[in-house]
Amino acid sequence: MESLQLDLGFRTLDWVGELPGHVQMLEQSLLPDQEIQLRVEDVPTMVAAIQRLAVRGAPALGCAGAYGVILGIQGSSEESPESWLQKLREVSRTVAEARPTAVNLSIGVKRVQELGERLAAAGEGQPADWNARLLQEALAFHREDEELCLAIGRHGAALLGPAPVVLTHCNAGALATGGTGTALSVVYAAKAMGKEVSVFADETRPLLQGARLTAWELHRAGIPVTVQCDGAAASTLASGRIDAVVVGSDRIAANGDVANKIGTYPLAVLAREHGVPFYVAAPTTTVDMHCPSGGDIPIEQRAAEEVFGYQERLWAAKGVEAWNPAFDVTPAKWVTAIITERGVVEAPTASKMADHMAD
Amino acid sequence: MESLQLDLGFRTLDWVGELPGHVQMLEQSLLPDQEIQLRVEDVPTMVAAIQRLAVRGAPALGCAGAYGVILGIQGSSEESPESWLQKLREVSRTVAEARPTAVNLSIGVKRVQELGERLAAAGEGQPADWNARLLQEALAFHREDEELCLAIGRHGAALLGPAPVVLTHCNAGALATGGTGTALSVVYAAKAMGKEVSVFADETRPLLQGARLTAWELHRAGIPVTVQCDGAAASTLASGRIDAVVVGSDRIAANGDVANKIGTYPLAVLAREHGVPFYVAAPTTTVDMHCPSGGDIPIEQRAAEEVFGYQERLWAAKGVEAWNPAFDVTPAKWVTAIITERGVVEAPTASKMADHMAD
Repeated sequence: MESLQLDLGFRTLDWVGELPGHVQMLEQSLLPDQEIQLRVEDVPTMVAAIQRLAVRGAPALGCAGAYGVILGIQGSSEESPESWLQKLREVSRTVAEARPTAVNLSIGVKRVQELGERLAAAGEGQPADWNARLLQEALAFHREDEELCLAIGRHGAALLGPAPVVLTHCNAGALATGGTGTALSVVYAAKAMGKEVSVFADETRPLLQGARLTAWELHRAGIPVTVQCDGAAASTLASGRIDAVVVGSDRIAANGDVANKIGTYPLAVLAREHGVPFYVAAPTTTVDMHCPSGGDIPIEQRAAEEVFGYQERLWAAKGVEAWNPAFDVTPAKWVTAIITERGVVEAPTASKMADHMAD
Repeated sequence: MESLQLDLGFRTLDWVGELPGHVQMLEQSLLPDQEIQLRVEDVPTMVAAIQRLAVRGAPALGCAGAYGVILGIQGSSEESPESWLQKLREVSRTVAEARPTAVNLSIGVKRVQELGERLAAAGEGQPADWNARLLQEALAFHREDEELCLAIGRHGAALLGPAPVVLTHCNAGALATGGTGTALSVVYAAKAMGKEVSVFADETRPLLQGARLTAWELHRAGIPVTVQCDGAAASTLASGRIDAVVVGSDRIAANGDVANKIGTYPLAVLAREHGVPFYVAAPTTTVDMHCPSGGDIPIEQRAAEEVFGYQERLWAAKGVEAWNPAFDVTPAKWVTAIITERGVVEAPTASKMADHMAD
């Protein structure tokens, strides 16, 4: 499994060099039309990259946050401990506020900042040593995300046959993480295990992450991918050519209900109708044990313009209303299994989820 | 019910005047951005309009075909019977060949041409009289389509409550017929009966007929309409706000299986799951008693570019495959009722369909 990442042929983001170093990052806002590597050397450049969605996806934003703090502090190794600490707090705030609603961005920032606070409070060593420790922490944070993705991939791929045809929705891929993704990590791991895997990707209206990002990264990684309109997925399932539906999740309730990109729930119902397993691949950090069921998950309504067209191209009749929920909820009864880095929860229930989370 | 058409506020196409006259037609290729009335006075203009989809939808094309022959022959009332007949055959061929695969276009042409052939063969009267008879035939053909739409609407609307919220897919509306449509005729009839009807319209990827045409015509007719992405329909059904799904059909097999625009089948399965009736509204001419079941209906695969974007705006990753079936098949077991101009076939089966068609 160690060679898995080599197979993808691209990296979402990486720290390059020692100190001072920089972040190399795929410019996702230009995908799939252009594949450009950004060299991010300072905090303003990182903040701008985060804001224009050059990097997106919760786990990937966590890594960007951790590295963003390093970019901001690495020039301060000659300063006094007091001014170093002040600088650490400043840059941490600036990076975290690039997208205030992105919880994982803050988590990455905090992971590095809190170590810095502890080192400064302990008063051992100097800012130059502390910077080196903070970089190690950021790299460890990133590596943990990669290992989590690999573990999800390995557990999920074990559920698939020797030449699986997978249907997926939206982008739960390497582009959204610091590693190989969640749902798509299952696909990459299957390939690494020698399985002849191929994918049907729903285009995923309204923001078309499937047609743009999932199709791009699978094709880039050498995995055959076929894009279809969301309304065609039911026919593809009915045709018998799909062996498994594998999707990611934005939030899993304590009873196993799954919130994910709008258009996921109908796949679960249709998969059951046609005897196809429906798998949800997500890290345990996605499981919210304080949220009893899917009914307790608030569903964000997004802008009507997303439904009326795509970016600058609007095609809908004027003067009408739009209904644009960002997510839907798939009740646990339709979920064949939830796959996390810890393993597989088959036919999830509140009690099985509690056991899994308590492991 | 006679005032129903007045309520729509627009007409798809109409013959204007006596002889010589012209066809007034809504330029659908510019909808919903511009609402332009075409004045079509000759065959080349009609052929061009048909070819650029200024008029589309099987029943509407039938009317365009019938009127197209009149446009071609109306200048020949002073000619000899022989040259009149030659002209009739020429223009009939030209109009029918505007879209050779559109069966209904040919049906409309033939209806007028065959009367002309009979009149000429009988040798009674003169070309001027025959032209008048042919125009009456074209008008009758159009009126029959309108009455068929009204009958479907009346039968369907009777199934709805006093304030129904209807979910529909694609455009089975007035714009596709010479009258008030099929699925949308049910909506218009409900309004005419005093029901407070409103509609959720699936945008209907890839060609977006729902967002562009269904939304336009319902809004134009004063019926509240909300556009949603196709993947959101399952959530809308799960939310309990939909009282009925009403769709059209391209072909109904002898056992009640229904072919319709891709994305229809998942609606049927999800409607059942949420206790919402799933109605198919179509004229009996859509029922193909020579086609035993849905498995015998060939499903056209359309161009990959339709999935990769919309018109000139392409967004998908390059180098990937596309799967783009034009239709899907909804097995009869998911259909609550088929509504035709003759009435309602509940829980359709081969034997019930045979009875309905034999009436």
